[in-house]
Amino acid sequence: MQFMESRQCLQKPSNPFAEPKRCLNCSCRHIRTAHFVVSILLSIHNGGSRLGSLRNKAGSSKVQVKPKNLVKVEMPSATQEINVNETTGSLAMSVDSVINLDRGDPKVYEKFWLENGAAAAVEIPGWQKISYFSDLTNLCWFLEPDFAAEIRRLHRLVGNAVADHGRHIVVGTGSSQLFLASLFALSTAPEVAVACNGRPVPVVSSAPYFSYYPAATDLLKSGLFRWEGDACSFHAGSTPYIEVVCSPRNPDGSARTAIVKSCNGKLIHDLAYYWPQYTAITGAMDEDIMLFTVSKCTGHAGTRLGWALVKDAEVARRMTKFIEVNTIGVSKDSQYRAVRILKAVCDGYELEGAGESAKLFHFGRKVMARRWEKLREVLAANKVFGLMEFKKLHCEFMGKETLPLPAFAWLECGRDIEDCESFLRQKHKVLTRGGKDFGADGKHARVSMLGRDEDFDMFIQRLKAIRL
Amino acid sequence: MQFMESRQCLQKPSNPFAEPKRCLNCSCRHIRTAHFVVSILLSIHNGGSRLGSLRNKAGSSKVQVKPKNLVKVEMPSATQEINVNETTGSLAMSVDSVINLDRGDPKVYEKFWLENGAAAAVEIPGWQKISYFSDLTNLCWFLEPDFAAEIRRLHRLVGNAVADHGRHIVVGTGSSQLFLASLFALSTAPEVAVACNGRPVPVVSSAPYFSYYPAATDLLKSGLFRWEGDACSFHAGSTPYIEVVCSPRNPDGSARTAIVKSCNGKLIHDLAYYWPQYTAITGAMDEDIMLFTVSKCTGHAGTRLGWALVKDAEVARRMTKFIEVNTIGVSKDSQYRAVRILKAVCDGYELEGAGESAKLFHFGRKVMARRWEKLREVLAANKVFGLMEFKKLHCEFMGKETLPLPAFAWLECGRDIEDCESFLRQKHKVLTRGGKDFGADGKHARVSMLGRDEDFDMFIQRLKAIRL
Repeated sequence: MQFMESRQCLQKPSNPFAEPKRCLNCSCRHIRTAHFVVSILLSIHNGGSRLGSLRNKAGSSKVQVKPKNLVKVEMPSATQEINVNETTGSLAMSVDSVINLDRGDPKVYEKFWLENGAAAAVEIPGWQKISYFSDLTNLCWFLEPDFAAEIRRLHRLVGNAVADHGRHIVVGTGSSQLFLASLFALSTAPEVAVACNGRPVPVVSSAPYFSYYPAATDLLKSGLFRWEGDACSFHAGSTPYIEVVCSPRNPDGSARTAIVKSCNGKLIHDLAYYWPQYTAITGAMDEDIMLFTVSKCTGHAGTRLGWALVKDAEVARRMTKFIEVNTIGVSKDSQYRAVRILKAVCDGYELEGAGESAKLFHFGRKVMARRWEKLREVLAANKVFGLMEFKKLHCEFMGKETLPLPAFAWLECGRDIEDCESFLRQKHKVLTRGGKDFGADGKHARVSMLGRDEDFDMFIQRLKAIRL
Repeated sequence: MQFMESRQCLQKPSNPFAEPKRCLNCSCRHIRTAHFVVSILLSIHNGGSRLGSLRNKAGSSKVQVKPKNLVKVEMPSATQEINVNETTGSLAMSVDSVINLDRGDPKVYEKFWLENGAAAAVEIPGWQKISYFSDLTNLCWFLEPDFAAEIRRLHRLVGNAVADHGRHIVVGTGSSQLFLASLFALSTAPEVAVACNGRPVPVVSSAPYFSYYPAATDLLKSGLFRWEGDACSFHAGSTPYIEVVCSPRNPDGSARTAIVKSCNGKLIHDLAYYWPQYTAITGAMDEDIMLFTVSKCTGHAGTRLGWALVKDAEVARRMTKFIEVNTIGVSKDSQYRAVRILKAVCDGYELEGAGESAKLFHFGRKVMARRWEKLREVLAANKVFGLMEFKKLHCEFMGKETLPLPAFAWLECGRDIEDCESFLRQKHKVLTRGGKDFGADGKHARVSMLGRDEDFDMFIQRLKAIRL
């Protein structure tokens, strides 16, 4: 895999408000970000928590949004009523609606699956999938063999990772569980345990890093591992550490490699977004631990499925052990369904006669390209926010040069706005995730580009209306 | 709920080899068991690990069982070949087969669902259940409203727990995840955190306790909570602790209440087996945190779904937060399917014209009664093992007196056998879980009563053949 930037810490100062500064312990230039380990209860914001803080009245066709006290958010119009669909909790959009672009909920794919849903439909009779076990002959005994086969087929189709040649597959309840399983597996390796001598293994990632990493790492105050923050300011000594490499990176979409130069590091590659709709596939990744998730590949976040491709059998075995103790395996129903979903994706490219509309990654690129174009257009007009610029790279899957179209926009506020997230929430009723959750400064905010069309279009309307 | 024994530590010495001894810190009599916190990697045995240690050769219609190094088990016939179904990994039974009764894999229910499977069948089109969110208006935002409704309906039908009247439902990836979520929620309560002043909260349960509790509690060496072992030997001071009350208790099937007498305790009630097929429903439980699982209620272990009924909103909120960070919610596909499964169970009792064969709990009792009868018969004949005796109690659901028919048999070896688990495994190729994993002595072993008929019948044959 080639990378767009050889100097990994460089976050391109594409907007005029950011000045590049020198990294503390590596030779590259970057925008220095606050090393900020957020508290667990505040770092993971969800729409429920945020929306829950809106006070409202129950009406005839309106249901009450219960207050959530963990994340206290004051809204300008605290007594407003919110229209909520009773069964799904999704909001009916209006010019006054709160737009939730905080979590990367991939509803953008709904349209594709409405058209191609029949191919991915699954029927499960009552007597099927009763047992805990999927395959006693496999190291990961709760991995459905058919799911493993479709995962390998998909990677062969896309060419984004080596999944054959003896690589082990470990399935997880989303790649979130696999992230924790990886931390467990790496920190309990015999040589690591000896070298750390009872101290938790430091875990780092280059900032801005995915806000989930610190929250998940420190949730239970584990004695095995501990969040240490930005990889750029981490001083590797003679003891082991774990570096998480997220590429393309959540939140900013940049391609990354490991930052810390040391022979004591263990790497986790989070490749959730290394799919052709988001970025150029420049080669098949072949790292020790590579994490993927169905959510960001096909859009089925509710299925809660991820998979890890793992080189070392002992690491895969310990990851399996973690999931065995954490949740005694992974939903078979989800795996059963995911078989059909991944099959539909592959068939869309490999079956003769499959039309253009059956090609998921092409659908994804088309929608994302339109959205990014609209976003850049409106930001160029109002001059309030800065955005990274990306270069085209040759995508082996698409067979041409393609521009990165990240799943999130990493906005940077200019002018006098110090807190981008508050500004968008309080003034414009747009929920985003603030930069500090990612180890960056408050001038940044992450905005999901994966919502439904109506959410995205409304967001663009709100941005258009901003006049400072 | 009434209990069979008012003296909670009394494990009835129904076999002649066990002498009752006095409990260390409570006034009741019980068989003293070793306080043994097992290591994680050894405490959770699964069929895969055990079977993996059998060396074998790949043949034309046989697949190789890969060696698992975590649990080293030497078998008498180490070069034997094993017939393994390639897709499910289940073993074709023969007089020489290894019988896996270690995990409580509830395949006993397959027969019921083969007959009633149509009522519980579910079809999921490709476009459904894409979002992370199930219901933004609910505290547990990833709980499907239809699933919550069927859970409440089921509890009203069975009368085993109060699920209405403002009780919160938190869904988990099996009750295993909910156990961890409960530990997190209780140990991070503001008053507990202050009282513990940075020290982990001790977690106890009366021995023999479910082997999962110590393994899960100590897996990540959490700074929030720590396994402390047998509740009977726990000295409650002035600081908080958590007691897990499992009733009917896994592994021995006895009904339990809390052991430790102190006002500083927080309780988790694990009621996985408080269903009419296993025990008399003597009343609706109404505890602070009550855990249930689909696995042991309907048999769908592969669905990996559990639920907690929680009184306090803040506790439920913190449990939700744990699951949010651990796995970002729970499979919607599983919940969608479970709606149909629980509906089929309730319909089997509530719909006019539903036949006898549609009554799950009656099916369960019938099969379990036959198995327990066979087991007691063969054990009475060979006089090698002891078993607890149970008393009949009035079951409000069945409307008559019923005998407990636990999901596990808690065997105690007599004579000169010091290690019941090894004896059954090495001499008779029956995989069970040894007493030490449960904080008891090696003379005990837990045997699943929930396997398929052929496994159970073969087990009975092996027991019959034992001559010492």
